Amino acid sequence: MRTRAAVVAAARTLFLRQGYAGTTMEEIAALAGLAKRTVYNNYPDKRALFTQIVTDVIAFAEAFARELHEEFTVGVTAANIRATLDDLGRRLALGIVREEVITLRRMLIGEAREFPALATEYFDRAPGQVIEALAAGFRHLTRIGVLRTTDSRRAAAQFAYLVAGEALDRAVMVGTVPPTSEVVAAAKQGVETFMARYGNGPDRRRGRTASN
Amino acid sequence: MRTRAAVVAAARTLFLRQGYAGTTMEEIAALAGLAKRTVYNNYPDKRALFTQIVTDVIAFAEAFARELHEEFTVGVTAANIRATLDDLGRRLALGIVREEVITLRRMLIGEAREFPALATEYFDRAPGQVIEALAAGFRHLTRIGVLRTTDSRRAAAQFAYLVAGEALDRAVMVGTVPPTSEVVAAAKQGVETFMARYGNGPDRRRGRTASN
Repeated sequence: MRTRAAVVAAARTLFLRQGYAGTTMEEIAALAGLAKRTVYNNYPDKRALFTQIVTDVIAFAEAFARELHEEFTVGVTAANIRATLDDLGRRLALGIVREEVITLRRMLIGEAREFPALATEYFDRAPGQVIEALAAGFRHLTRIGVLRTTDSRRAAAQFAYLVAGEALDRAVMVGTVPPTSEVVAAAKQGVETFMARYGNGPDRRRGRTASN
Repeated sequence: MRTRAAVVAAARTLFLRQGYAGTTMEEIAALAGLAKRTVYNNYPDKRALFTQIVTDVIAFAEAFARELHEEFTVGVTAANIRATLDDLGRRLALGIVREEVITLRRMLIGEAREFPALATEYFDRAPGQVIEALAAGFRHLTRIGVLRTTDSRRAAAQFAYLVAGEALDRAVMVGTVPPTSEVVAAAKQGVETFMARYGNGPDRRRGRTASN
């Protein structure tokens, strides 16, 4: 397992630095500090490594989506919805705007000619599933009277892009991840705006008197 | 002028299809239906063409930002703020989520090794100036009591990513622009959420009773 992780990390670094076409299995082995043979034992070719990098990020997103689903089915009330969403928004933003995801997204765009279907698969399975899980959560919270959404899919997308949109967009374009404090501050303000529309209690307007 | 536009359009198509490195001035001339000499008379090399493509989109964004600024200084009142923002949100979303911008963004990411500083310049001058213009408008509207913002820069970013975030993100990743109707619907709902937090009158809650 540790060997595979080292190979994948080396491949990621080199694909990004030199491009997929400009990287050889030899260089990957050298950067990982492993014999070429060891690398080939785990991954038959560059293509398998590229796919592995994508699969890793998708698996992370799928785990996040599952966890999210559980979180929304137990214990969320009008009293703790703000704290729940603050925490969720923060984790969501930090889960999206991080080195691994930004790098992967840039690789998928840069190598779209080589892997034409992979970016769509990534988008539908990683952000896609997280947004679906959020939507299911918001539907549940609306049913129990904690939120007010009608189009839960739309509310979920708004939540995601309110908490992480600008930081993600800039990071993908520019290639550098902003400081954590910046991502966290944007997420908090995103939740505030989300609650102004979809909150369902006196707490909904808290932001308008206190921090807005 | 028409010659230059034809050359730039051909270059854009080929850079995207074959990559910057894989495209020659000959191919650009052929696709534009022009003599190689005519192309060289306008652009000394591929690099000049690439930069021109970026400059065109930046110029479009700068014009949009200027226009925005004028729009916000005259005639916006509590009675027409919703219609003003609906219109603005719609135009902003359609101005961002269009073929030329998506293509450019993908090119900038894909060719980041060749043009390391250009994506940052693009981001700061195109989305950056539009967000600054929005922020100035929101400050003005807050001063005259039509909106309630304290951090106008944050409100501006939220506006932009509420109206266009998801469509932009998916289009940049996947490479295809969604149908106009989808972009327009998302923009309208984005304005609704924005107004729930930053609106300053009875109209603010319209969405909560009518369409929410």
